[in-house]
This record gives sequence, C-alpha cells and structure tokens, in this order.
Amino acid sequence: MMQGVVHIPEELKSLEDVIASGFSSVEKVFAEQLVSDLTPVDQMCEHVERYRGKMLRPMLVLLCGAASNPDLVKMLKQGSSNQIITNAHIISGAVCEMVHMATLVHDDVLDEAEIRRRGKTINAMKGNETSVILGDYLIASAYELCSTLDSPIPSRIMGKASAVMCTGELLQLHNRNNYELDEPTYFEILKRKTAALIGAACELGALSTLGFDQQDHPTVKALLGFGTDLGIAFQIQDDVLDLTGTLETVGKSVGKDLDKGKLTYPLIHHLTNTASKARSLQIIDAISQGDETGLPELIDLVKQSGSIIATQEMAFSFVQSAKSRLNDIPDGPGRPMLQLIADAVISRSH
Amino acid sequence: MMQGVVHIPEELKSLEDVIASGFSSVEKVFAEQLVSDLTPVDQMCEHVERYRGKMLRPMLVLLCGAASNPDLVKMLKQGSSNQIITNAHIISGAVCEMVHMATLVHDDVLDEAEIRRRGKTINAMKGNETSVILGDYLIASAYELCSTLDSPIPSRIMGKASAVMCTGELLQLHNRNNYELDEPTYFEILKRKTAALIGAACELGALSTLGFDQQDHPTVKALLGFGTDLGIAFQIQDDVLDLTGTLETVGKSVGKDLDKGKLTYPLIHHLTNTASKARSLQIIDAISQGDETGLPELIDLVKQSGSIIATQEMAFSFVQSAKSRLNDIPDGPGRPMLQLIADAVISRSH
Repeated sequence: MMQGVVHIPEELKSLEDVIASGFSSVEKVFAEQLVSDLTPVDQMCEHVERYRGKMLRPMLVLLCGAASNPDLVKMLKQGSSNQIITNAHIISGAVCEMVHMATLVHDDVLDEAEIRRRGKTINAMKGNETSVILGDYLIASAYELCSTLDSPIPSRIMGKASAVMCTGELLQLHNRNNYELDEPTYFEILKRKTAALIGAACELGALSTLGFDQQDHPTVKALLGFGTDLGIAFQIQDDVLDLTGTLETVGKSVGKDLDKGKLTYPLIHHLTNTASKARSLQIIDAISQGDETGLPELIDLVKQSGSIIATQEMAFSFVQSAKSRLNDIPDGPGRPMLQLIADAVISRSH
Repeated sequence: MMQGVVHIPEELKSLEDVIASGFSSVEKVFAEQLVSDLTPVDQMCEHVERYRGKMLRPMLVLLCGAASNPDLVKMLKQGSSNQIITNAHIISGAVCEMVHMATLVHDDVLDEAEIRRRGKTINAMKGNETSVILGDYLIASAYELCSTLDSPIPSRIMGKASAVMCTGELLQLHNRNNYELDEPTYFEILKRKTAALIGAACELGALSTLGFDQQDHPTVKALLGFGTDLGIAFQIQDDVLDLTGTLETVGKSVGKDLDKGKLTYPLIHHLTNTASKARSLQIIDAISQGDETGLPELIDLVKQSGSIIATQEMAFSFVQSAKSRLNDIPDGPGRPMLQLIADAVISRSH
C-alpha cells in the first residue's frame, strides 16, 4: 500500500512486506468489528466504505511499532519478522482508522447541511440522521475494540485524543467567519483537530512494541512528537490543496474551507501580507454566503502575495521538525521509512 | 434527589443519604471532566446543561453498587457508610450519564433537522454542527473518563453498550414509516437503544462493588437483568407518554414519534386490534408528512381499542420481571429501594 504513496527503495522492501502483512490484518479486524447481527446495520456500514482513504493512521501505527523495536534489524534478518507486528499494533491501527472515519462521517453531516443551505435538500434529513448515528456507531465500535486490549492505557490515549479533536472542531466552529483569525489560533485548531490523532497513532504504535506503561520512554515521546508535527504538516497541505486544487483538478472539494467561513494558513498569511486586503475580504465574505464567482480572482491574489509559497514552506518546516525527532528512535530501516512517509505528506496532490 | 421521584420510607433513609452523597460526587466529576482550557468550548458545554434530566442512570449505578454489597447493612450501622460508594461507582455513574447525554444531544440534531423540514431554519445549521461535535465531545470525554479506571472491563462494557445503542437507532431508522413493524422488532429496538445502557449502568454498579472480573457473579447477572427489563419498561412508558401527553400537558414533545414515522407499542397493538385500521393508517401517514390535525382522533381510536391499557400492562409486566430478578441479590435495604425505583419508572408522567 505504501507503493502508491512513496517509492520504496530496495533496502526497505523487507520492512515494507512486514507492514503490508500487518495492514491486511488491520483491514480484516476493521471489517470484523463492524459486522453486526442486523442486516440493515450492515447495509448502512457499507456506506462507510466510501470514506476509506489513504489509511495514513494505521500505516503510522504499524511503522512506528516496527521503528521503535530495538531488535528490528535482527528480526527482519533472522526470519522472526512475523513477530514484529503484534495484536496490539493491529488493534491500535484499526481503532485509529475507525475514529478517523467517524470524524469523516460526521463532517459529511455538516457538509450535507451546507448543501441543504444552498437549496439541494433531497433526502438530506435521512442522510443526516444516518450519518450521525453511523458516526456514533463507528466511535463506539472503536472504543469497544480498543478496550479488548489488556491495558486501559490505549483507551485513555484514544479517549483523550478524540476529546481534543472535538475541542479543535469546536474552536474552529467558534471562529467561523472570523476574518481576523490569527496564526496561533489557527495552529491551535490544527494541533487539536488533526495532529492529536496522528500523534496518538504514532504513540500507540510505539507503546504496542515497548509496553503500554512506557509513555515516558524516549522513543515513545519522539514518535509522539513526530506524529504531532506530521499531523500539522498534513493539515496545512490539506488547506493548500483546498485552495490550489482548482487549477489541477475540478472537484467538489475546492474552496470548501471558505464556503464554511474557515480561514486557513494561506488566507491568514495573505490577509496580513497583501495590499489588496479589502478586495480579498470582500470576495471571502461573498464566498461564505454562497457566491463563489470571485474564487479564481482570490486565488490569484493569494498567489501574488506569495502566500501559497509561504504556506508550503511552513508545511515543509513542520516535516523537517518531524524528521528531526527521529534521531531519538533506534537506528534501522524504520527511520528512513518514516522519513519517506513524512516527505510524502506534503508532496501529495490529493 | 430520589425524593422527587419516589417516596422514601423511614427505614431506607440511611441508604438514601449514602446515595445522595455519591450523587454529589457524580455531578462534580461530570462537570470537571467537561472543563476544557478553551473558553468557547466551555461556553458550548453550557448548552449541554439543558439536557440534564432525572439522572436515572447514575442513580442506578450507585444503588446497584450499594445493593450488591453483601456487607451493606453492617456498613450502614457501623459508621463505615462512606466506604459503600467508591471512586469506581462515581466514575461509572458520570460515564453513563455522559454517554446518555451525548445521545440526547445527537437526537437534538435529528430533531432540529425535523424542525428545518417544516421551514423553521433560523440558525439551524450552526445548531446542527455544534450539536454533532458537542455530542462527539461528550462521548469522547465519557470514554476518557471511563479509561481512568484501572481495568479495561468498564470501557469494554461501555463501548459495547454504546455500539448496541447505535444499532438500535439504526434499526429504528431503517423501519421509519414501516407501518407493518411487528412486536419482536419493536422490542429488539427498545432492548438496544434504551435497555442496553440502563443494563450496563446496573452491571457497572455491581462490578464496581464486587470487582470488574466478576461479570459471572449471580448478583451482577441479576442486576444486569434488572436494568435490562427496567430499561424496556422505561422506554415503553416514554412511548405511552409521547401519545397520551396531549391530554395532560401541552408540550412540543407530543406525537414526536409519529412525526418521525416511528411506530411504538401502543400503535402496533392498536393496528393489530382495531376495526378502524384503514382510518388509523391514513392519519398516521398524514402526521408523518407534517399534517397533525388527525392526532386527537387517532389517540381516541388508540384508546378505544384498549391499546393504551395493553401498553401499560406490558410495561408493568417488565417492571415485575425486573423486580423478580432482585431475588438473586443480597437481602437488605438495596432491594426495596430498587423496587421503588422500578415502580416509579412506570408511574411517572414526565
């Protein structure tokens, strides 16, 4: 699965095989957990399949799990590579993806509400109800799965990360149509709504290898930091794609943040560095009220003020910071593999 | 707090004091868990206060905790009554209420969608978004709190109960506007969406006293059964009140089930026992499409067919079944207290 995202050099192939095998187990556990004894529930769960994405979080759980193993090189060589990924890694990976998917399902509720706001209301209510409850079912199933592990620590980490994610969403909601949104608040939102779960995925991966009582272990702390920085970079890149996607792809997702009155880094940077602030605000306000005609002009203005490049540099600096954290984890193939993933997070175009 | 619900006889006053003191602790833990470091989040959490109801679930956690203690009588007499309710009971009580409140918040999303369907759309979208995320925040906070206990068993029970609740909601949604809904499916929905959490509350109360590894203990199983039966009775009573509330109170909640195309026991019984089925179906269909003019006539028809009385008898039989489960728990004041609560569940008018 990593092949699709990054080019894997020859010397990392044996590690990639281990991760790929763990990945299949994650997918199996994920599907099994959601099977119910009720046909209509199973039917509705099929809806969820369409939200399945890059599986970044389980990939990070597995990779951080392998990378934090001090015997990784030995185990890869001595034919005990099937012991690198354990049940704890697989459960943790499936749990992270399930929680992530729940947030996507609930985001969809909000998006559907938005579509309704513009008049397309066909069946929207039934969609809303199903989405709310499906999302809840995913969250509950994730916690149920997480608590099958012997220790309450993973549940504690996931509960905490999920609560923090929600506070990030609430903070963002609170700042809807706030065109004075400043950088510190923007980064606070990012850290909470995106980086908390990605950080938790990396931490759980390491803890699954080293033991759940090892939260103070330098490797665990390093990988938590890695995931947090990477999560911030990931979201910044998402924010860039939401704006620049217009030029490369014609998709419904373009300009979605502005539709929702969400100011992202490119816009925050632009508004503090442009001579055309009044015009930009005028367009932003119109978009948030449903009139998107000014979007191409706004994107041009953002580019002219150097804000896209500044945003990409900001994402790059977080990737650099993430990679620097890897100095504190065991030497071995896990480190370059995580570096590759980190680079891929900001080079992606979707 | 139980004073408002039931009359407590003199010989149960000392137990009531113990429960009342535990109740204050539950409320304190509940509030503390939801405090965040972000002002807007705290502001939004204040919304949640309006959902605070009878606190039935924490009450059952505490009472079942006390009732399952074989030394209860001795402890009440010997001045060690402050050891009857422990941290595990308090955490479990707060967790159950928080999960319950999350479902109310998310129900509210669905209700707001309904209001919008009839045209009242002012600020409805912002309400929807806030409600979805607030509900998620409550769920995540509940799991975070639950996992502070040393054992993963309470998290497992709560995760399972929450997932089952969602399947009940999905099953109900699937049967929306299904006027052929049969009794077995109706009871399956009830057992899942309401009884699972009330059963879990009782089970957690007993386990908090006897140890989380005691799921097979006769007292634990008896109280789980008690809670499950009581939960079914509770929901049947809710369904009766949704219909008969018209005559006693003028409130927005009246006829809500029919608005949403939900067939409840009084209606299911009525449709299989009336000579006027065609007329009743006609009215039901009109109501589900927003025309409520026929509601008083329908209620009359339901009463004439004896279906309200039959429903009350059904609720009563579940209360009897619940009470019979109490033969398997230790003799003492916990038993009559739980019997009082059980009776109150179907004698309530709100």
